[in-house]
Amino acid sequence: MKLATLKQDGRRDGRLVVVSRDLARAVDAGAIAPTLQVALEQWERVAPALLALAAALEAGGAAGAFAFDPAQAMAPLPRTHQFVDASAFLNHGNIMERAFDLTVQRPEGVPILVQRQGDDLRGPCDDYAFASEADHCDYEGEFAVIVGDIAMGSSAARCADAIRLVTILDDVSMRRFVVPELQMGFGFIRAKPAAVFAPVAVTPDELGDAWRDGRVHLDLRVLRNGRLAGHPNGAEMDWSFGELLAHLAYNRNLRAGTVLGSGTVSNRDAAEVGSACLAEARALETIARGQPATPWLAHGERLRLEVLDREGRCVFGAIDHRFVAAAA
Amino acid sequence: MKLATLKQDGRRDGRLVVVSRDLARAVDAGAIAPTLQVALEQWERVAPALLALAAALEAGGAAGAFAFDPAQAMAPLPRTHQFVDASAFLNHGNIMERAFDLTVQRPEGVPILVQRQGDDLRGPCDDYAFASEADHCDYEGEFAVIVGDIAMGSSAARCADAIRLVTILDDVSMRRFVVPELQMGFGFIRAKPAAVFAPVAVTPDELGDAWRDGRVHLDLRVLRNGRLAGHPNGAEMDWSFGELLAHLAYNRNLRAGTVLGSGTVSNRDAAEVGSACLAEARALETIARGQPATPWLAHGERLRLEVLDREGRCVFGAIDHRFVAAAA
Repeated sequence: MKLATLKQDGRRDGRLVVVSRDLARAVDAGAIAPTLQVALEQWERVAPALLALAAALEAGGAAGAFAFDPAQAMAPLPRTHQFVDASAFLNHGNIMERAFDLTVQRPEGVPILVQRQGDDLRGPCDDYAFASEADHCDYEGEFAVIVGDIAMGSSAARCADAIRLVTILDDVSMRRFVVPELQMGFGFIRAKPAAVFAPVAVTPDELGDAWRDGRVHLDLRVLRNGRLAGHPNGAEMDWSFGELLAHLAYNRNLRAGTVLGSGTVSNRDAAEVGSACLAEARALETIARGQPATPWLAHGERLRLEVLDREGRCVFGAIDHRFVAAAA
Repeated sequence: MKLATLKQDGRRDGRLVVVSRDLARAVDAGAIAPTLQVALEQWERVAPALLALAAALEAGGAAGAFAFDPAQAMAPLPRTHQFVDASAFLNHGNIMERAFDLTVQRPEGVPILVQRQGDDLRGPCDDYAFASEADHCDYEGEFAVIVGDIAMGSSAARCADAIRLVTILDDVSMRRFVVPELQMGFGFIRAKPAAVFAPVAVTPDELGDAWRDGRVHLDLRVLRNGRLAGHPNGAEMDWSFGELLAHLAYNRNLRAGTVLGSGTVSNRDAAEVGSACLAEARALETIARGQPATPWLAHGERLRLEVLDREGRCVFGAIDHRFVAAAA
């Protein structure tokens, strides 16, 4: 099943729709649940009805179906009560540490997780305004999961069972602030403004055997101004999403709608498959040639992130947005 | 005006009530706004009606008024899309750094702010379960504000204008994880489980001239098992709430319902007025005598946080909760 949230009269949580597998058609799901947040809170009750609606849509029998326009999509959850981002591809961190002679003091076995703001998650095609190119704007391509309620102390297996949806995101980053904020120790503030999400979130079964071991075994394609900049695969995550959730749930409940990002997707053969962020590409250039060559994002540039399945079909729809200058 | 959220049939956002100035009576505000979150999103529309209801309640003319029971209160916002905690009393950080020979690398003028989870904010009187006393459970007494929508790039003055409500919180902390998580650089995960809020949030005007310069000029009284452990004053905040919000809003929108904590209230004469957390009391003992004497919290202990106005009247109601062992 594929779900999306469409813009509707300025409603902060939009309205829930079911989207066809080929992303061509959609149908309003408001009679089942007005918003994705409500659906996640009442999943046991609403999921069967949503699945029946999705089946009718596939069969061409959903009344009121219409063409799905990703430009009308908000983030699947336009806001959430908890957004956590991991850095679960250690390869990415290792490259950054090598290039910049940094050391993250990480106790053995402990994953990097960082709390993030959930009040303003952006839709896939909306212009992204930032003030100053001097802040060194970057993208980060990531996989993400959205979960149901998870009780404090839940095991990785129980956490994995609570994963309701999978999607992708662009974790827009202002690199000028990353190292100073890491050195302070308290995580990110100015380094991480609003994140941008794909138009569609899908139940794990939609991924077939590409969803296994709590990871998405598919390439994340990154296109900068239409040119392929990288296509790293999600299989190399050093922790599964279930393991990351269990670390979080050690001494707290995780409530329905919690969004967990994977961190920048990064592969050990990055020299061949490329990178899902500019910082990593620049770090590889620095390691190889002593200095970076790839520039940070300028106002007017375009970013596209998408995942194709093994038959070449787009799974989550594309994040496809333009960076623009913020109004003074 | 004083507002609270009462438990109601397991509803995640509870139901909104107006509370009398003396905290004795309440009246349902559901006909105006079902929840505090909705009220904050539509403040211009709903505030006049809420104020009229509050006036009727004070005058004894509110139909359906009932005795206010803080034990039935949830956090004013039982969940929010953004919870940020500052560490805006530099005196606290200075004591911690001196006692433990730490250095926080903070660029001149930059406040410490840390993103936190907003999915599970706790009510004032509910038992607080934690698994292991070996995790070194502590409280932190703080002031907090709750804001309306703030646009990216807003000045400190504009941010201050968007402060809708003021309250207090107990930022429960597991000290075993604080230093390792700070050293990783990505902020707090296990060090900061659910925070606990006062039963009532008040509009700034309720504080009279105790609300000025974006600070609460009142003592926060901290009682451990009924014994006064400290009563530091909010006046010594090194940044106003408006300044902290403006730092946050540099490159992002802050959406209605964002909660910002002050960090542990701490005064330069801490040796006389005491501390709002055990870590600071232990640090002062370490500085004075080479080792701490005050123990961490054990299961079964009770904490009370409250603020009295200059006439000795309780402003926000009391956080008054017991720490208990989590079920295995």
